[in-house]
Amino acid sequence: MNTHTVKVVKSILANNDVVAELNRRRLVEAGVVAINLMASPGAGKTSLIIKTLEALRGRARVGVIEGDIAGSIDTEKVLTAGAQDAVQINTGGNCHLEANMIQTALESLDLSQLDLLFVENVGNLVCPTQWALGEQLKLCILSTAEGHDKPVKYPEIFAISDLIVLNKMDLVELVDFDRSFFYDSLKALNPTVPVFEVSCRTGAGIPEFAESLLKYKQARP
Amino acid sequence: MNTHTVKVVKSILANNDVVAELNRRRLVEAGVVAINLMASPGAGKTSLIIKTLEALRGRARVGVIEGDIAGSIDTEKVLTAGAQDAVQINTGGNCHLEANMIQTALESLDLSQLDLLFVENVGNLVCPTQWALGEQLKLCILSTAEGHDKPVKYPEIFAISDLIVLNKMDLVELVDFDRSFFYDSLKALNPTVPVFEVSCRTGAGIPEFAESLLKYKQARP
Repeated sequence: MNTHTVKVVKSILANNDVVAELNRRRLVEAGVVAINLMASPGAGKTSLIIKTLEALRGRARVGVIEGDIAGSIDTEKVLTAGAQDAVQINTGGNCHLEANMIQTALESLDLSQLDLLFVENVGNLVCPTQWALGEQLKLCILSTAEGHDKPVKYPEIFAISDLIVLNKMDLVELVDFDRSFFYDSLKALNPTVPVFEVSCRTGAGIPEFAESLLKYKQARP
Repeated sequence: MNTHTVKVVKSILANNDVVAELNRRRLVEAGVVAINLMASPGAGKTSLIIKTLEALRGRARVGVIEGDIAGSIDTEKVLTAGAQDAVQINTGGNCHLEANMIQTALESLDLSQLDLLFVENVGNLVCPTQWALGEQLKLCILSTAEGHDKPVKYPEIFAISDLIVLNKMDLVELVDFDRSFFYDSLKALNPTVPVFEVSCRTGAGIPEFAESLLKYKQARP
């Protein structure tokens, strides 16, 4: 790859940052806290959204933007679970969401009717880290089934996240997940990041996680 | 993104295909069957390599190329488990392996001493599908913990794979994995692809999988 190629990549990213900043301002003006959910396929992004919707029912109006390569299974699920509004983005083959996709999705949401907006990124621990969307919070979900070594192998996503959710705690004993190893390597990358241990299957830890989002929103009316 | 950008991306991919073809010829001439292992983070790529190494001990000489964003944990593990030879590629931040990385890695392996070569791609269900490495077999590993809906959400990788391994079968009852849904959606994408159900934790299904690789190699002396 030559210098010319690098230049092109930089200009795409620069343009993305401009659109992300426009999205961010629009969300802040509307008083909507947007959370960019990033995780491997199957770590529990949609499940966490659904459980949080249930926990916040009647206390917050939650919108969802679903990003997937293909399909609309998740959007149907979150609407059934009580999302105020939801939009599906099909990326075609793109491995991450970009700011212009969010800009388009925001057109079809009534932001005045929302307090929180979950943006479910494409399942991928690598590429989404490079693309700002305009979110206020970056949330990384890891499931215990993926293994305790993931911060060592995918450092960037753990370093830049504002919140970490450790999901599938109901499996922690069954999958030889070494908590000390996980927390030591995470703290080396991101010393103060809050970690919520949850099980979307049993519901354990969900109230505390949902409460923290609500408090974040209440501090930004 | 303008037309100019698309042109650059195309030329990078075209160049990748040229190098991949050189790798492929070199491997075929040496009688080495190379397998490109693609999966989400934590699906069990390294565990499958380790279990297969154990199953094939004394019957096949197996090399490993480990691709990771960072770290060399896996290379140490596979050497301990009996790999004939192993090389670590650190991609820096790249979300997939490319043919030129494999070309460089092949320089440090004595191919005349190998029968099989596992190439462990970066954990990612999306980007590795676009980059040929010179492999004879593309293998996709899905773990039951990731969920039965993955072929619907990440169709490309399931469509192009020559072999599928469904790992973590020991968790299948605990994670509500719907086998019918999985097999129906997989068959719609790739009707004849062989699927091996295994548990790298218990060892179930590993002998059958290892045997299939050995047979493939024996058919290509």
